[in-house]
Amino acid sequence: MRSVNIGICGLGTVGAGVYNVISRNSNQIKSRANCDIVISQVGARRDNPNCDTGSTVVDRDIFAVARNPDINIVVELIGGTEVAYELVMTALENGKHVVTANKALIAHHGMAIFAAAESRGLIVAYEAAVAGGIPIIKALREGLTANRINWLAGIINGTTNFILSEMDSKGREFSDVLTEAQEKGYAEADPTFDVEGIDAAHKLIIMSSLAFGMPLSLDGIFTDGITRLEPQDVSYARELGYAVKHLGIARQTEEGVELRVHPTLVPDRCLIAGVNDVSNAVMVNADAVGTTMYYGPGAGSEPTASSVIADIVDVARAIGTDTQSWVPALGCNAATLKEQKIMDIQHIETSFYIRFSALDQPGVLSDITSIMANAGISIEAIIQREQPAGEEYVNVIILTNATKEKFLDAAVEYIEQLETVRGTVTFIRVEHLDQ
Amino acid sequence: MRSVNIGICGLGTVGAGVYNVISRNSNQIKSRANCDIVISQVGARRDNPNCDTGSTVVDRDIFAVARNPDINIVVELIGGTEVAYELVMTALENGKHVVTANKALIAHHGMAIFAAAESRGLIVAYEAAVAGGIPIIKALREGLTANRINWLAGIINGTTNFILSEMDSKGREFSDVLTEAQEKGYAEADPTFDVEGIDAAHKLIIMSSLAFGMPLSLDGIFTDGITRLEPQDVSYARELGYAVKHLGIARQTEEGVELRVHPTLVPDRCLIAGVNDVSNAVMVNADAVGTTMYYGPGAGSEPTASSVIADIVDVARAIGTDTQSWVPALGCNAATLKEQKIMDIQHIETSFYIRFSALDQPGVLSDITSIMANAGISIEAIIQREQPAGEEYVNVIILTNATKEKFLDAAVEYIEQLETVRGTVTFIRVEHLDQ
Repeated sequence: MRSVNIGICGLGTVGAGVYNVISRNSNQIKSRANCDIVISQVGARRDNPNCDTGSTVVDRDIFAVARNPDINIVVELIGGTEVAYELVMTALENGKHVVTANKALIAHHGMAIFAAAESRGLIVAYEAAVAGGIPIIKALREGLTANRINWLAGIINGTTNFILSEMDSKGREFSDVLTEAQEKGYAEADPTFDVEGIDAAHKLIIMSSLAFGMPLSLDGIFTDGITRLEPQDVSYARELGYAVKHLGIARQTEEGVELRVHPTLVPDRCLIAGVNDVSNAVMVNADAVGTTMYYGPGAGSEPTASSVIADIVDVARAIGTDTQSWVPALGCNAATLKEQKIMDIQHIETSFYIRFSALDQPGVLSDITSIMANAGISIEAIIQREQPAGEEYVNVIILTNATKEKFLDAAVEYIEQLETVRGTVTFIRVEHLDQ
Repeated sequence: MRSVNIGICGLGTVGAGVYNVISRNSNQIKSRANCDIVISQVGARRDNPNCDTGSTVVDRDIFAVARNPDINIVVELIGGTEVAYELVMTALENGKHVVTANKALIAHHGMAIFAAAESRGLIVAYEAAVAGGIPIIKALREGLTANRINWLAGIINGTTNFILSEMDSKGREFSDVLTEAQEKGYAEADPTFDVEGIDAAHKLIIMSSLAFGMPLSLDGIFTDGITRLEPQDVSYARELGYAVKHLGIARQTEEGVELRVHPTLVPDRCLIAGVNDVSNAVMVNADAVGTTMYYGPGAGSEPTASSVIADIVDVARAIGTDTQSWVPALGCNAATLKEQKIMDIQHIETSFYIRFSALDQPGVLSDITSIMANAGISIEAIIQREQPAGEEYVNVIILTNATKEKFLDAAVEYIEQLETVRGTVTFIRVEHLDQ
């Protein structure tokens, strides 16, 4: 049986997971891969107490791994975009295939990396870059290959989903849950990437390129985080039959592609509304198959390792075969990738949840409903809820039917100008995910 | 660009879907497959008004397709096991790769078919045989290849799930819903295969072979249908926080492999409890990734076609490459497949839901709880519910903790012998799907 030598760069959470799972399940992996996957070298700045590398050489210079002539596949698990880019390009220049779990790297430098790989007859695989252990790249790229994809919507960041689940089930404040998440290791010390939706945007653009056959680019993607979400809105949403989820949404429309990451009301009856804690899930709607969903752990040592190793096995199988038989990096021939117009959020149509504080007196609702009617927005539901005792103001909550965001913005501006309305209007987008 | 010629045998619901989707999405499929997929010939006993085959030859003799020297891939969509087996073997003998959607064929004759294919350097692909449009075979065989799979549990028959969803949401009787399902085309005129769990057993054994690396065999699989389920049990389950689902369950234990299809109480909080109507979903628990779930349409013309075409593209890519680089039919080297002991249902451990009718008088519960204690079964919950007015009997409902089925059977026998208990004891297995 032939051997395939791999070099692991980075021995953090994921690197240790890859090392440990390959060691533990080596017989099974060998029988499935039809070859021996040998960890020839590890490159890491420091050792990891969760990983006994035994006799495997641990080199402090990760670039030594990328240049090691014995290695067939370099596994990039160092994270970040600068050094990781240099490392991956060095590996390719040295004739190595690459497996990476790095979503930021692929989102920012994917096109250059894939081009470099293609020109040298090498593979760059990145299943672990999106949704951790869920084989969503394989599903999009191979499983649904017969389909034109209409839209996809995913909970693709475990940290935000954990925070939202806690806010929902326990009525807690965002900042309070964030602190706990940091203590538990679910959130980074600097949580910006997660809670502002940047990480989700990286994953969304990767899935969208695969889904819609367009080059990777972060330009034009609308990104809003969960930092300003209030428990009362999560609670009102629940009362109205919705869960608040932080979704990455991509949709092919006749006017262009929608690419957006934002808190979203999702109907309870929708399966994804029940995806809680650090779990991820991606719904995909396509012309032949209809709607499918892929659920699982979105992060973590061994879940991510599961995807990394699946890629290693795929690449190991492909070594020595005709490059024409390989699945292209972005699912279709690079030559057929096509730029698409990314829609401005102002032109995107969704339903909305709106909340504001208004005087509890006759005529107020009439003013509001007139404003909505003049903006061409039809109202699906409107409820009033009392504020704490003694307040002369009530909370007004409105669910609208679908409208372009620019019309909603105009209506919001009018509502905020009403003398009977106090403060600003809060709004959250609503998706029914049923068409 | 090279061409790959396919011949479609069978032009029923799925055959028409395959024809129509390939025709509609041909450009995209070409760009993804890196070759031209040409439907050279169709073999069918009759035409299908939902499929305009245009200039494509429709041959009344499906075996002519299997022997056509121009064809690279034969797509078997005729169903059944006798003629389909002969057809597939003929195709293999004539050097054709095969794609099939036929679960009964693979469950019964898979080992012979795969051996014949391997000896001739050919591929037999069968994604569409399990869970319709969901790419579950690819997920098990490639996406989770790093893992040792602990268990899987799936709603893998759309007909039974539709019937259970209606019984649950509307309190309807089994036979009443079945009639509607037959009218809607969700159930066959002879529904035995679906409602008795035979179809689910076929799909379960295919997934289990992939998951546990064992040869395909229907021997020893425990199969119970939904025909005796009463609306009151679905309703009591709901009251206790459970949905009743018809699950196919496979689990690797130290004593052997559990293989069983039966109605099952699943906690509401479990994502699969929310999978309703004709949808399918498969949960997979594995050592590295933990629990993942795959959801989508389990049947239908174009959903099934989506999986058939994904296989066609995979096979088209593989043509001309080294057979050593192919993913083996059952995920691992045929030589490493290992028979496992299939556990008798009597030795399988689950929790149970129990219902019976008992006199509403002191001492009855004491008798029952003594019987359970003597059988070594601990009780998680016990509730009494009045029967219709005027009855001196009440319904007693018990949820047990995990116990071997033989102990439960013994307890049931004692309970049925009590003079204070009327009729038989109904029991349904409970799975928490959380470990």
